[in-house]
Amino acid sequence: MSIHPFNWGVIAPGRIARNFAEALAVIPQATLYAVASSNLQRAQDFVDEFDGQLALDDYQQLANDPKVDAIYIANPHRFHFDSIKMCLEAGKPVLCEKPLTVNAAQTKELVALAKANNVFLMEALWTRFQPAWQQVKSWLEQQKIGEIKLISSSFGFNIPRDEDDRLLNRELAGGSLLDMGVYNVSMSQFVTQSKPNKIVADGLVGSTGVDERSSVVMNYGHCASQFTCNFLANTENSFTIFGSNGHIRVPSMFWVGTQACLSVHGEPDIVEDFPFRASGFEYQIEEVMSCVAAGKLQSEVMSWQKSIETMQIMDEIRSQIGVRYPFLGE
Amino acid sequence: MSIHPFNWGVIAPGRIARNFAEALAVIPQATLYAVASSNLQRAQDFVDEFDGQLALDDYQQLANDPKVDAIYIANPHRFHFDSIKMCLEAGKPVLCEKPLTVNAAQTKELVALAKANNVFLMEALWTRFQPAWQQVKSWLEQQKIGEIKLISSSFGFNIPRDEDDRLLNRELAGGSLLDMGVYNVSMSQFVTQSKPNKIVADGLVGSTGVDERSSVVMNYGHCASQFTCNFLANTENSFTIFGSNGHIRVPSMFWVGTQACLSVHGEPDIVEDFPFRASGFEYQIEEVMSCVAAGKLQSEVMSWQKSIETMQIMDEIRSQIGVRYPFLGE
Repeated sequence: MSIHPFNWGVIAPGRIARNFAEALAVIPQATLYAVASSNLQRAQDFVDEFDGQLALDDYQQLANDPKVDAIYIANPHRFHFDSIKMCLEAGKPVLCEKPLTVNAAQTKELVALAKANNVFLMEALWTRFQPAWQQVKSWLEQQKIGEIKLISSSFGFNIPRDEDDRLLNRELAGGSLLDMGVYNVSMSQFVTQSKPNKIVADGLVGSTGVDERSSVVMNYGHCASQFTCNFLANTENSFTIFGSNGHIRVPSMFWVGTQACLSVHGEPDIVEDFPFRASGFEYQIEEVMSCVAAGKLQSEVMSWQKSIETMQIMDEIRSQIGVRYPFLGE
Repeated sequence: MSIHPFNWGVIAPGRIARNFAEALAVIPQATLYAVASSNLQRAQDFVDEFDGQLALDDYQQLANDPKVDAIYIANPHRFHFDSIKMCLEAGKPVLCEKPLTVNAAQTKELVALAKANNVFLMEALWTRFQPAWQQVKSWLEQQKIGEIKLISSSFGFNIPRDEDDRLLNRELAGGSLLDMGVYNVSMSQFVTQSKPNKIVADGLVGSTGVDERSSVVMNYGHCASQFTCNFLANTENSFTIFGSNGHIRVPSMFWVGTQACLSVHGEPDIVEDFPFRASGFEYQIEEVMSCVAAGKLQSEVMSWQKSIETMQIMDEIRSQIGVRYPFLGE
């Protein structure tokens, strides 16, 4: 690690970026350096609140600033591709909110660019780095529940219907799959360490043309993962891995996992709590800083290949459900 | 109701028939009259244990006995069609274990026969008649949880693998769908009071050619029902109905439902217990006796049409998963 603090830049200081800034505060080497928003006042307010140094109204200026060590991108996913591309072309390491892009072709293009430009790139799938999920991984590696047979998860809330909302906006790549289901998909990959060989999906496509519900079975051969994501009802929102000899559960809300529960047939249940040090984003941020310091271009935990696979799975699900994003020429 | 006791005949006095006999004991008008098994000693043992009157080694003799008011059929489902047909042709009302047959064509043929012969016929989907499920129905009718958006259920156990077992035997129409999934399907129909307009299914077909796991999404338009049934892992085995304003859950094991839980947003949860009077079979038995006394040919709760739809759904799922029963010419 260099002696100077690790200077973070933030693109789009909205609600999610607050979690990022709160996490930075508990990482000694990390500094909130610069914040860029299309609205300068919003950038300045964020800088003031989270003790940053520089407010900008130009993303490119942020990417070009030689003092910036890495950039966190938090704009709507429709715009991730352009923002990431700009940062990578400026040689800046990138942590970008999930989903990394809106389809697999975009992700592949960015991965090729990161490779060509020798720049770090990672999808901000923070759940994978949380201590509770590391405990899940450890239990799986120890085969505590035997062979994995089934994964069951959900992510759903009855969200007041507002057709102007980003979530229902097809031009902004809305829909429950890309916004919520990305967690069900990515954490299924995390657990299985593989990709499905078959997918079947059903969905409810509402009047705005996006999936307000997606119900999916992913067949991994040795096991299957079944999930529903939706805007229509508050579902259970836990993530359970059923094995031949018991099950592991991360209770609601699984993507904010601070508890891991192990239930082995014939043994007392084990419940382990892992409270976050801050917002929970701190673990992925530390991963980025550690990878960049080590000269790595990607994280082994949230690798490029896994991001590509996530997007391929979501492409396939969207195709089966019939959700097309016209701005992609679909 | 006639003054003389209602004389039940039993075909195939195995494990399930014990639940039937235990239930008869709490219904004052009902009598275990005759029991028929291919093994006379088994029939006699059952008659002795449950205070029956007549042991037979010939199903036809049971069907022809003028003293028999109705027959309960409990042999493996591969044989239901022939047994039901024989009883209906003898003019005997039938309560037959689920699934009623092994495909929809068989069910339709039997329904036509019941109609032509003016004889009562009902699938023994006992869950539909349980008081806890009647409470669920009542809550749904009162729209306690608003509009139904999602149904989630599972039925799975890690069953020690025995290739000689009926469950894995393709010649006996084995597989988790027909044995377990029939509950997930039929209770989804019970809840939605409709049939799916689209089904997507994935399964694991093992070395014996039957589904050891089936994972299904049934799209009902206004809502979807998602379930897994399997022989590989102990799943949650509850049945939850998510609405726009809360959820209703029948906890494990949902098909033996003695508890109904209502959770409405912003209100305290309500948990109601409905212990069975006997095995739980008493409620469907009373339905049969009541229908027969009233001269009805079918039950409104477990109607012919619902049995046909269950089989059509299972035909479609089997087709998608690739489970064929050669004895059906598939």
